[in-house]
Amino acid sequence: MRIGIYGYGNLGRGIECAIKNNNDMELVAVFTRRNPQSVKIQTEAAKVCAAADVDKFKDKIDVMVICGGSATDLPKQTPELAKMFNVVDSFDTHARIPEHFANVDKAAKDGGNIALISAGWDPGMFSLNRLYATAILPNGNDYTFWGKGVSQGHSDAIRRVKGVKNGKQYTIPVESALAAVRNGENPKLTTRQKHTRECFVVAEEGADLAAIEKEIKEMPNYFADYDTTVHFISEEELEKNHSGIPHGGFVFRTGCTGWNNEHNHVIEYSLKLDSNPEFTASVIAAYARAIYRLHQEGGIGCKTVFDIAPAYLSPLSNEELRASML
Amino acid sequence: MRIGIYGYGNLGRGIECAIKNNNDMELVAVFTRRNPQSVKIQTEAAKVCAAADVDKFKDKIDVMVICGGSATDLPKQTPELAKMFNVVDSFDTHARIPEHFANVDKAAKDGGNIALISAGWDPGMFSLNRLYATAILPNGNDYTFWGKGVSQGHSDAIRRVKGVKNGKQYTIPVESALAAVRNGENPKLTTRQKHTRECFVVAEEGADLAAIEKEIKEMPNYFADYDTTVHFISEEELEKNHSGIPHGGFVFRTGCTGWNNEHNHVIEYSLKLDSNPEFTASVIAAYARAIYRLHQEGGIGCKTVFDIAPAYLSPLSNEELRASML
Repeated sequence: MRIGIYGYGNLGRGIECAIKNNNDMELVAVFTRRNPQSVKIQTEAAKVCAAADVDKFKDKIDVMVICGGSATDLPKQTPELAKMFNVVDSFDTHARIPEHFANVDKAAKDGGNIALISAGWDPGMFSLNRLYATAILPNGNDYTFWGKGVSQGHSDAIRRVKGVKNGKQYTIPVESALAAVRNGENPKLTTRQKHTRECFVVAEEGADLAAIEKEIKEMPNYFADYDTTVHFISEEELEKNHSGIPHGGFVFRTGCTGWNNEHNHVIEYSLKLDSNPEFTASVIAAYARAIYRLHQEGGIGCKTVFDIAPAYLSPLSNEELRASML
Repeated sequence: MRIGIYGYGNLGRGIECAIKNNNDMELVAVFTRRNPQSVKIQTEAAKVCAAADVDKFKDKIDVMVICGGSATDLPKQTPELAKMFNVVDSFDTHARIPEHFANVDKAAKDGGNIALISAGWDPGMFSLNRLYATAILPNGNDYTFWGKGVSQGHSDAIRRVKGVKNGKQYTIPVESALAAVRNGENPKLTTRQKHTRECFVVAEEGADLAAIEKEIKEMPNYFADYDTTVHFISEEELEKNHSGIPHGGFVFRTGCTGWNNEHNHVIEYSLKLDSNPEFTASVIAAYARAIYRLHQEGGIGCKTVFDIAPAYLSPLSNEELRASML
């Protein structure tokens, strides 16, 4: 499988690592909007090319992994590239998925290609677990918790506060809420009861720390509905202890069965990830394999993780899977 | 969807409950090898029929759920019934799955039907989680733990011991082993380090308790490789505290990513089930929906959970799924 990477940020670098871990994949080229000479990659055999030259690779790449952002990059890039390539993206603006799907579906069908959107862990593996668990226990409740992990959006919000030089924000699930759900108590949980937010802030010299803390804690949408803690630390400490991008979370379904709903069940799926982008990239790599195969069978159009039979993700044959994993 | 149940034990009764919880399903008939007059079911609108008359329902049932045992029933029943019906079974003898698959595949293709074998949670949901997690993290380790729950096979083994009137056996995962795996330590675990076995035994009057305990603890395959506890209790206490059929377990994949394998990840899937047969039945019901739809699209032959795209399990449309669960 010949893979291209379109966009070389954290996710693109994660894809490069994932390709190294999958023997049936080969990185052909990384495409960048920067000057290609300025971008150093780790794979010796692969090229770095200008994004504008991507059409020259139409017959040299089996699956293009698009690593742009969901806000403005992917809504434009995925439909454009789906006309030329089989593509996978990690579009994660949940509310705009139906619109993105429609645009990508049309482009992929026009080009005779397959596109898979919204691969990763949420959307992605968490979505799959919500679907499976709800289909199995129609009579029940869903819970999704995120963390402990770094939220990029909330970290950005901190850094926009006046007097803040740098900052990182961790989203943390509330242990007692997790325990109540796991225990089958079916709690009704407010936003505040589900997660706390912990901020590590580097202030500019002479900044008003009390004012920064107040502005963060009262910021609507981002922090006002949560119990938020703000720690002021040095740039060195931020670099030393908070430069990773860990994340994770939990998907629960609790539900009952029996003629009189007398039996309770708890389904729990959880992830604990040292590197959010590398794990997302690992999911994307497996789905790149899946759509490559589906395309070989004649499949076209836009898909999501819901549409892909699990066997397509594995390098093993169906016979091997049944003998070893069923 | 018109459903038939072939065999009315714990699993068959669970299927009946699952159908009640799924509005798009209707129970047509229960088929039994016993005298149909002697079998009471809970669904007023459904019939109880002799297993021998099943062929008369060829055009009246969309999916037949086969609820026999894996040792001798299913290897015979599933191929036979797959000639006449779309069928689902819960065949769980892992080592014989390839052989069973081949037999059922031939019969289903001969009949123009779809069959799905080995639905449930292990094989079933646990298998799916092994596949997904291994495809995502090719560089890692798998761990499956079972329990706390009642093992039917081990309970049967206890009851065959001389002087034993009745008994129940619980399989229990070792907490410290779970913690080490969850912590990403990648431990190498022996059989003894993974699970303990706890037995509740009702002895016959005057039986030699020490001899019973010794025979259980030293029983090869079943108990000798485990730390086993034996409690002698009264028939009343067994009935009062140990008449349920709870089960559950854990599937882990721990693996690393990064150019130098520097980042660790833990994927965990767990089930805590009040009723093993009713949860198994709930999984089967969702897969009955899936194969009914696949058959409407022209699909035939034998499938497993690996071959079914998740969207087929849900009563929601693809548009609804993308808008609500992705």
